[in-house]
Amino acid sequence: MTVSPLARPFPDLPPVAGVRIAVARARYKTWDRADLTYVALDEGTVVAGVTTSSKCPSPEVEWCRAALTLGRARALVVNAGNSNAFTGNRGRAAVEAIAARVAGATGCKPSDVFVASTGVIGVPLPIDKAEAGIDAALAAPEASWEEAANAISTTDTFAKGAVVRAVVDGRIVTLAGIVKGSGMIAPDMATMLGFIFTDAAVDPGLLQKMLGTANAQSFSCITVDGDTSTSDTVLAFATGAAGNAPLADMDSPGADAFNAALIDICTQLSHLVVRDGEGATKFVTVDVEGAQSDASARVIALSIANSPLVKTAIAGEDANWGRVVMAVGKAGEPAERDSLAIRFGATQVASGGLAVEGYDEAPVAAHLKGSEIEIGVDLGLGEGRATVWTCDLTHGYISINADYRS
Amino acid sequence: MTVSPLARPFPDLPPVAGVRIAVARARYKTWDRADLTYVALDEGTVVAGVTTSSKCPSPEVEWCRAALTLGRARALVVNAGNSNAFTGNRGRAAVEAIAARVAGATGCKPSDVFVASTGVIGVPLPIDKAEAGIDAALAAPEASWEEAANAISTTDTFAKGAVVRAVVDGRIVTLAGIVKGSGMIAPDMATMLGFIFTDAAVDPGLLQKMLGTANAQSFSCITVDGDTSTSDTVLAFATGAAGNAPLADMDSPGADAFNAALIDICTQLSHLVVRDGEGATKFVTVDVEGAQSDASARVIALSIANSPLVKTAIAGEDANWGRVVMAVGKAGEPAERDSLAIRFGATQVASGGLAVEGYDEAPVAAHLKGSEIEIGVDLGLGEGRATVWTCDLTHGYISINADYRS
Repeated sequence: MTVSPLARPFPDLPPVAGVRIAVARARYKTWDRADLTYVALDEGTVVAGVTTSSKCPSPEVEWCRAALTLGRARALVVNAGNSNAFTGNRGRAAVEAIAARVAGATGCKPSDVFVASTGVIGVPLPIDKAEAGIDAALAAPEASWEEAANAISTTDTFAKGAVVRAVVDGRIVTLAGIVKGSGMIAPDMATMLGFIFTDAAVDPGLLQKMLGTANAQSFSCITVDGDTSTSDTVLAFATGAAGNAPLADMDSPGADAFNAALIDICTQLSHLVVRDGEGATKFVTVDVEGAQSDASARVIALSIANSPLVKTAIAGEDANWGRVVMAVGKAGEPAERDSLAIRFGATQVASGGLAVEGYDEAPVAAHLKGSEIEIGVDLGLGEGRATVWTCDLTHGYISINADYRS
Repeated sequence: MTVSPLARPFPDLPPVAGVRIAVARARYKTWDRADLTYVALDEGTVVAGVTTSSKCPSPEVEWCRAALTLGRARALVVNAGNSNAFTGNRGRAAVEAIAARVAGATGCKPSDVFVASTGVIGVPLPIDKAEAGIDAALAAPEASWEEAANAISTTDTFAKGAVVRAVVDGRIVTLAGIVKGSGMIAPDMATMLGFIFTDAAVDPGLLQKMLGTANAQSFSCITVDGDTSTSDTVLAFATGAAGNAPLADMDSPGADAFNAALIDICTQLSHLVVRDGEGATKFVTVDVEGAQSDASARVIALSIANSPLVKTAIAGEDANWGRVVMAVGKAGEPAERDSLAIRFGATQVASGGLAVEGYDEAPVAAHLKGSEIEIGVDLGLGEGRATVWTCDLTHGYISINADYRS
């Protein structure tokens, strides 16, 4: 597996007080690598989460949704190589067995155990392998963040992590996160999972609210291929070990700083997923402004970011702004051809419904040769704006998703 | 340019009474081929049309929309190589000049002249070339349907036409049609245009109603890449030369037969566009049933047909039904994982929310090796159903849309 040309080195992630990581080889596939990640969380840890909007969620997603209503966590188990999705009662039984095994070994409640799995769909997760893997992880030495980031990966080409610090109530709190995902977001081997751990003390209701806001600006604004998985899950755990006065609402001292840090780490992690987009060679930022509303801007931005013709033009380093016009036009949102303006990088290419006078393609062509591409659209209608991130569509994507059988 | 492996030979299209075709070399690009098609229509010809839903339509589309309100046509001009889209006042002036040139030469009204153009976006159609091309076409000998089908083409790899006959009021009426399009539906060189000509006598209001219905079941049910052009146009012209008592409403004798013939020819033409889908190697039918409504079924069917992961799986002849589950789940329409059933060809692969007992992949693998693929989904919720047609997503698509600059 070739590492993505957009890869970033794994950062230096510090321990987070109250969090202990282990990895094990459950051998969900015929591979010789850690594929079960176990995270032990100190008593009092609070949890928040967002899960896929798919109408066909995995049993892990359903389990997490139910457990999230209680807001407490003592353990996280992540399986790689088998998503356990679309497996009926046997899939549900596997998740229950995992929670029971951890609860039995550690004395916590099954509902304190969070479970996430990605990998092949339609094959029930083998309970014996999961149980043996949990037993091995419980006996294993502490693992590093990078080992965990690798153990949760499937088709990822590099380990992904981020760290952000904030001052809350006079204490330095740490947020450390790992994420996996490369095809956004295939159910078989490339679903997105993200896990964030902090030693801050936060009320679970507030953490949930903050995570929802951060997710809307980060993980919900990335797309590789417009596909949405049955297993997408982002969980945030707060151990409270930093000793700050617990954040209760947005008016609590330090809540703003913590909120900004959470948005920051979610944004960093989400961009790493795009950087590992299947076949990606360009990281693309799509900025839409002047829309009738933020929601409308978002629909238009995603229409551009998901357009195969826009994405292949970027792959070909082709200043084909007509395809951006097309993607705006097809979005179905309010748009006026004759007030539309488009830029590539810092160069305006079209405005007022036609190419700019004396349009010079040279600076655009130079921008498109880089690996960080920016497309700006001003609809000229209102104040609505949105930013989404995506990658180009290349032969690599086809090879990864079509050729592995041939 | 390699001919699509899914190409069909051009059929034997008879003349349609009241319709005369000519082609000319306007040289909109530096190519040596006919790129202007002129169709003269006898007095009394009625017209109906459907145009793109894009919010950024070309001036040709706006012109046709206005002219369609009058319901009469005497001429059609089709330009290939320049879409004239996103060109402001100069683009509008080009369309007006074309209509004026034809009106001046033939004595009809400008509003009797229909214009359609596809090709590069953002460059105003050169009026001098268009006028010279029209003059040449007016002086040219009659051309064949196949010559016209080639002259309207841009990135198409084969000429596309169809013919259907029906008995109306004791007379045999003919419907002949040509279509172009290959990337569904790129604005720069591959927008879809379809033109249908019949000698039947039909009231323009009824023709419009029938074309709307036929379009909803044909052109609106095909997708190559989910992209929608600024120029998509389908026009139906009825000369009335067959001498039948004009069809006035659906109760007129023969209206049913004509309606069925119109649906038939639209379906045939739309399938030909999919067969020339950029890079296509498989023709894919997606049947969705058991949805809460027909509209819901259509959204789900298009979600499957537009999913890059489903399309690459088909390209790879991979029986990856998990990706179909994903595409159903992400559609946002009512769906219940545990009542969902999926088949590939005639073989059931999943039902009741999991793989069928004793699932044997062999017949599915054999089906996927063919060039005509069928994916069936039963949601088990209601009576809603829809069928859409698409093709696979291959390296060919990437090469056509990304590599031509490199």
